[in-house]
Amino acid sequence: MTAARSRVGSPLGLHRVLAPAGVLPQAAWQLDNGPALWPDEVRVAVDRLNLDAASFRQLREAHHLDPATMRSAVLDIVATRGKMQNPVTGSGGMLTGVVAEVGPDSPLGLRVGDRIATLVSLSLTPLAITDGLARWDGRSEQVPCDGHAILFGRSIATRLPEDLPAELALAVLDVCGAPALTRRVVSQRPADPVVAIIGAAGKSGSLSAAAAREAGAKRVIGVVPHEAEARLLGSGSPGLVDEIVIADARDPVAVSGAITAAGGPADVTVVCVDVPGCEGGAILATAQGGTVIFFSMATSFTAAALGAEGVAADVTMLVGNGYVPGHAELALDLIRAQPAVRGIFLRRIQETSADTAVGGGARSGK
Amino acid sequence: MTAARSRVGSPLGLHRVLAPAGVLPQAAWQLDNGPALWPDEVRVAVDRLNLDAASFRQLREAHHLDPATMRSAVLDIVATRGKMQNPVTGSGGMLTGVVAEVGPDSPLGLRVGDRIATLVSLSLTPLAITDGLARWDGRSEQVPCDGHAILFGRSIATRLPEDLPAELALAVLDVCGAPALTRRVVSQRPADPVVAIIGAAGKSGSLSAAAAREAGAKRVIGVVPHEAEARLLGSGSPGLVDEIVIADARDPVAVSGAITAAGGPADVTVVCVDVPGCEGGAILATAQGGTVIFFSMATSFTAAALGAEGVAADVTMLVGNGYVPGHAELALDLIRAQPAVRGIFLRRIQETSADTAVGGGARSGK
Repeated sequence: MTAARSRVGSPLGLHRVLAPAGVLPQAAWQLDNGPALWPDEVRVAVDRLNLDAASFRQLREAHHLDPATMRSAVLDIVATRGKMQNPVTGSGGMLTGVVAEVGPDSPLGLRVGDRIATLVSLSLTPLAITDGLARWDGRSEQVPCDGHAILFGRSIATRLPEDLPAELALAVLDVCGAPALTRRVVSQRPADPVVAIIGAAGKSGSLSAAAAREAGAKRVIGVVPHEAEARLLGSGSPGLVDEIVIADARDPVAVSGAITAAGGPADVTVVCVDVPGCEGGAILATAQGGTVIFFSMATSFTAAALGAEGVAADVTMLVGNGYVPGHAELALDLIRAQPAVRGIFLRRIQETSADTAVGGGARSGK
Repeated sequence: MTAARSRVGSPLGLHRVLAPAGVLPQAAWQLDNGPALWPDEVRVAVDRLNLDAASFRQLREAHHLDPATMRSAVLDIVATRGKMQNPVTGSGGMLTGVVAEVGPDSPLGLRVGDRIATLVSLSLTPLAITDGLARWDGRSEQVPCDGHAILFGRSIATRLPEDLPAELALAVLDVCGAPALTRRVVSQRPADPVVAIIGAAGKSGSLSAAAAREAGAKRVIGVVPHEAEARLLGSGSPGLVDEIVIADARDPVAVSGAITAAGGPADVTVVCVDVPGCEGGAILATAQGGTVIFFSMATSFTAAALGAEGVAADVTMLVGNGYVPGHAELALDLIRAQPAVRGIFLRRIQETSADTAVGGGARSGK
């Protein structure tokens, strides 16, 4: 039990930044992860970390999945930095746990005992681990553990739904920004648009396809890299997309040609594959006056900016902001209502230890 | 004199890609820079290259401004790649010249004898140099030379205006995407917005400030890094901005605090400084529901995406597309009508050999 501190904190958590001075918690090298709360903070008793895909892949490659060295690598990072931010990838992940204490000025609306998931990245969340990760075998992104984490006034967290398995809910919440922004962009178009989803059989891709449909897309075209993904995407009923096309997202001529042949060009193109080099194809597949939403963390800013300029493409290009108000609820509602999307998620969860980069996860960078 | 080739080319210039196969000309390692035209191409007799700032800085640092090695470095790149794309920075620049031959199917509307500047990057433009760069002293981004360049069906070029010095016109055209996109975003807001320009005393920044004003901004706040830039920005009359604030764009708390104190938060924030680490400040300075336009080539996609998510910022983030229809004309009209902007440009041109990164050029990445 800790008493609320008397100092007034910053809703951004600036008061927790130890080094370097003056930066935001995400950019900080080290955070204060002490359990005592500032008045607007919340402390969570952590039960599970969900390392982001890029971070887990880096750790796996560096430590060959050896349980002891995987554990000590994660413990070292958290002990040194006061947060689980992989110093190589810069990324973090999410966590689940139970609210242990709520500061008197917290605006988050949480109560002691709530089971929650964080929707802000571990890369900015003060964290301490107390069980030496004894329950983690080092082979999965999902890391059972004991410890505590701190939420700031402006952090985002959501109560875990009781009607969905925790593993499914976590996987959905991890990518919930994508369908929310897709819905907003599609519904703001003056006429019902043609929407292309590159990586439509992945987690963020399938949710975005469902969101585009709900928001009034006239036609949804799903791009996948090979036959197996096409079967996965086409397996549900009713169909998640109107057309399935197989193309390498890194081949601009192939992908734009395939989308055009399937009823494009697209008015809205959503990039959900987590491999570099997809900017040109997405731009070429999009009609003049259209919009490209880049969700993939492998997106290159300069490749997008110069790529559009280089082909005189008058397209609006959006950085896929992972936060849109109501994003968690929207994504959970989609997974409840759409058996095809749910099927894809259950399949992806089974594949946890496989590398699902192409057509897979996107947004592996929380 | 060369005859048009009989094969049908691609408006994107795919037929000029020698290696690797299947990529767009910008992503290619090597282009065919032969002078014979495909039917929709245009050949330009080049008289000047304008190396982009990032490329020139890299060459200068590698070769210490030694004229002979600077010359041989550029000649080597062009001879090897068939285009002037710096292999370290990936960027190119622009060129000026006179139209020498127009293919029968060219859609660009150019005539033999037109003096033009290209508005697509040198990084995708087939180029040959024939004079050994004998007239270049290696000390300036502007490289006088003889040679030829090829424009594709979908390239963009503009006639150089006769009422402006060529050096001024080139500098304006180099950044003309920024004011055009700023104008579009400002004029699409439902109510007249507050606009913050980060790097307002630079080339793209000053043009964007003028464009924001013309498009109906209620208030334009210019952010500059120090007193000298503040004096430059405030020197014109009528004032280019309503408020000038001095803040380090890389310090998110300082820059957002300063903008808020000057009448913010901004509904539209335009990032025009070419240094890394400006994403967080721009996001924090922007009101919920607002828009951030990233023009700086130093923008990190992941820093923007995770930065907004990390502070629950519901802001639209745009990749600054360098192409907007009518962008060249708009920018030239602004420089004609706005003495304050013209004054800033003339000052920047005098500083050519100085490093004007902070608050300076932005968009140093054509």
